[in-house]
Amino acid sequence: MKKFTSVSDVENLQEMIKKALQIKENPLSESEKGKGKTIGLVFLNSSLRTRLSSQIAAQNLGLNVLTLNAAQEAWNLEFADGSVMNGDTVEHIKDAIEVLNQYCDIIAVRCFAGMKNKQDDVYESILSQFEKHAKVPVISLESATRHPLQSLADCITITENWKEKHKPKIVLTWAPHVKPIAQAVGNSFAEWMQEMEVDFIITNPKGYDLDKNFTKDVKIIHNQEEALKDADFVYVKNWSSFDEYATMPEVEENWMLTNEKLSKTNQAKVMHCLPVRRNVELSDEVMDGENSIIYQQAKNRIFSAQAVFSEILEVINSK
Amino acid sequence: MKKFTSVSDVENLQEMIKKALQIKENPLSESEKGKGKTIGLVFLNSSLRTRLSSQIAAQNLGLNVLTLNAAQEAWNLEFADGSVMNGDTVEHIKDAIEVLNQYCDIIAVRCFAGMKNKQDDVYESILSQFEKHAKVPVISLESATRHPLQSLADCITITENWKEKHKPKIVLTWAPHVKPIAQAVGNSFAEWMQEMEVDFIITNPKGYDLDKNFTKDVKIIHNQEEALKDADFVYVKNWSSFDEYATMPEVEENWMLTNEKLSKTNQAKVMHCLPVRRNVELSDEVMDGENSIIYQQAKNRIFSAQAVFSEILEVINSK
Amino acid sequence: MKKFTSVSDVENLQEMIKKALQIKENPLSESEKGKGKTIGLVFLNSSLRTRLSSQIAAQNLGLNVLTLNAAQEAWNLEFADGSVMNGDTVEHIKDAIEVLNQYCDIIAVRCFAGMKNKQDDVYESILSQFEKHAKVPVISLESATRHPLQSLADCITITENWKEKHKPKIVLTWAPHVKPIAQAVGNSFAEWMQEMEVDFIITNPKGYDLDKNFTKDVKIIHNQEEALKDADFVYVKNWSSFDEYATMPEVEENWMLTNEKLSKTNQAKVMHCLPVRRNVELSDEVMDGENSIIYQQAKNRIFSAQAVFSEILEVINSK
Repeated sequence: MKKFTSVSDVENLQEMIKKALQIKENPLSESEKGKGKTIGLVFLNSSLRTRLSSQIAAQNLGLNVLTLNAAQEAWNLEFADGSVMNGDTVEHIKDAIEVLNQYCDIIAVRCFAGMKNKQDDVYESILSQFEKHAKVPVISLESATRHPLQSLADCITITENWKEKHKPKIVLTWAPHVKPIAQAVGNSFAEWMQEMEVDFIITNPKGYDLDKNFTKDVKIIHNQEEALKDADFVYVKNWSSFDEYATMPEVEENWMLTNEKLSKTNQAKVMHCLPVRRNVELSDEVMDGENSIIYQQAKNRIFSAQAVFSEILEVINSK
Repeated sequence: MKKFTSVSDVENLQEMIKKALQIKENPLSESEKGKGKTIGLVFLNSSLRTRLSSQIAAQNLGLNVLTLNAAQEAWNLEFADGSVMNGDTVEHIKDAIEVLNQYCDIIAVRCFAGMKNKQDDVYESILSQFEKHAKVPVISLESATRHPLQSLADCITITENWKEKHKPKIVLTWAPHVKPIAQAVGNSFAEWMQEMEVDFIITNPKGYDLDKNFTKDVKIIHNQEEALKDADFVYVKNWSSFDEYATMPEVEENWMLTNEKLSKTNQAKVMHCLPVRRNVELSDEVMDGENSIIYQQAKNRIFSAQAVFSEILEVINSK
Repeated sequence: MKKFTSVSDVENLQEMIKKALQIKENPLSESEKGKGKTIGLVFLNSSLRTRLSSQIAAQNLGLNVLTLNAAQEAWNLEFADGSVMNGDTVEHIKDAIEVLNQYCDIIAVRCFAGMKNKQDDVYESILSQFEKHAKVPVISLESATRHPLQSLADCITITENWKEKHKPKIVLTWAPHVKPIAQAVGNSFAEWMQEMEVDFIITNPKGYDLDKNFTKDVKIIHNQEEALKDADFVYVKNWSSFDEYATMPEVEENWMLTNEKLSKTNQAKVMHCLPVRRNVELSDEVMDGENSIIYQQAKNRIFSAQAVFSEILEVINSK
């Protein structure tokens, strides 16, 4: 694997999941693989799970870890090509990336959607700079439109929780929120589910359909009750409107996931990437209930990251 | 040791001090004990000594260390059970703790008193969530009402500095400050001194008596001069009123510790947990004088933490 | 080497450069040298290159690394001796240093010029406290008037890029900026160039001459075009006025380095310490052009730091 920014970087998803589960069995089995190599974890945004799970995964592989809170610890970054830097920005992102090239064997970056200019986000104005200027493998720790390490962890978690022979029915359901949130997790989950042996549908209010480039032919149902029927897995996540970008069109019904709604499913396992707004996105009873596999999902972030780092090191070490 | 949040978690204090002093002699004697294990150091508040000494102690034991400045690096935390999270808080503390359970073998947390609601602080509204939800051993890096790693370092320091056969007289003296400060260090020192073979008294202005749950039968004297007489150790520390919670009732006399006051003691050693307000809590001459063992106290924070981590690892490794 | 705060701490610069280049060939050749030792990296200001390169250098030597963002993670520091700390400052710098003495075998600190009071900066009001109170070797990660780890990296880079037998002509040219910037990099580069076998001149607008204590007898030319003629290396850097301290006297001509100006040189290599204001200090075409060795300079920050840490460890380990 030469980089990891979307599912298209994964050659064989089933093999990747299998590898992650092997790592979970024995996390220190490749503890020398990253020896003498350095991974830079660059955070342009907040992070709890991604930060800690990436650090653990890297340490398990013997990698040196450099964690940089870019905004607070380094310099105010300029993103526009060709700009005359006579304002508040102190360092151009491409110079920062070129320096990271000198210091790191792998660069991992978190760069959320700005949620202001649709084109900037759709074209990944920040991640694209990393993909363009990095001379070492780039790993996304969540970008404007995707969160692939989360999606891989989701696939691992579903695999662990499904032992039937038939395909599980998996429903990605929109959930309420109090402010406009990016579509990255939803987009990414949609992309990855299309690579899995599952029956996958999405349910969200009208006006909240995700970008067709990610959902493609996936069925989208605007009636949550209908969608949840007989679900084996329910993935709860809010996102703001893609069409009327980053707005929150009014929603009349209450889309919060409750035990009552869950009772219409096939005792579905409940998933969420966290952080979650309790009693807004889903109720306490669901979050703390027996059907939740949300913390297991969080744990699998370690093995998702470690499988990816390991694959990337495979290529680096073979040079 | 299954957790460490107060002196009651220590089975045998003398043995604990002895162990810490052995570690001080040879800090790398157990450098493999924590191998493959991870400690999460979670800071909800500022820290210099606790941060650095805990990192050193963990490294000396071969532990992986994850340091998280929760407020700045992760998400704005919600603390109220059952709340509808439609405000500024992004992640519930219990979800954050459940995730830490997945990532860490030991969770250490600093969570100061909020100094707003007495009941919240008295009942340890944050630490109690960790004690309730953590599935791995919890270590306090100072909570609303106690600072046990400091108190253990204080016991180590007193032990190093007292070779007489009779009990030393130890005085905890209140000191002035410019804003309301928590009672945690004072409470904790009072608790631990009651477990030591010492003569211990407290002196503070009227209106500043500490919570009886910590001081129990310890003599409290409101006249500083009288209290300091013949003291062998003077522990200087400010705290705000417990009765009129988090206020600063007027104090007529100047309680700052000076060399003149010190001259009435038995050439007492001077202690303070740091940070200290120079020329407010104590004078420069005391701070920089020969009687100060304050930096030695700071150094012993390493061995206090390392002894505790080591005891906790003992239990983990025996499983 | 007992400390490293200026070129005067280097006994033999040519040997030091040679050592750094050997480390560059084999960065892990001394991976056990720092074992069991701790370096504290204390940042009172922002940092990208210094932060990451120092961490890498320390890890390459097997040192434990403690990185402290003092302002955000620890306590608000007081710098004035003898002050009554009844204001916003919580801990005196000398107490923080004394605590670092207890925890670290090497203390490295970044403490920029305050740019408010000339005397404070000229006399290194912060670094001098570290030099006075530290009981372990002190390394400057850039102070008010010098940036020696940068200058050593500059010397390494020049050495790598000059294979001729005659001395190269090296020009330090002032560049425009939008706010008053410290003289530290300029001062330091001037000092170090005087120790190298090079022809060195400085060019800057009138009113911008650097402190004579650093430039000594170096020729200063106020006409940029004249200065650049036949240059083999052009070092671009802004600084504010030293005479009218921290001001920006008006400059009529445009001092930004462009390809047109570069065409008058002897195909000079272009250097800059970064971060750089693109299209203000130098044009995009220069920054991204073939003559730039700016990223190579950034990479050499690792080997500059590692050579210094290694020399310091030599002294520590011999005790």
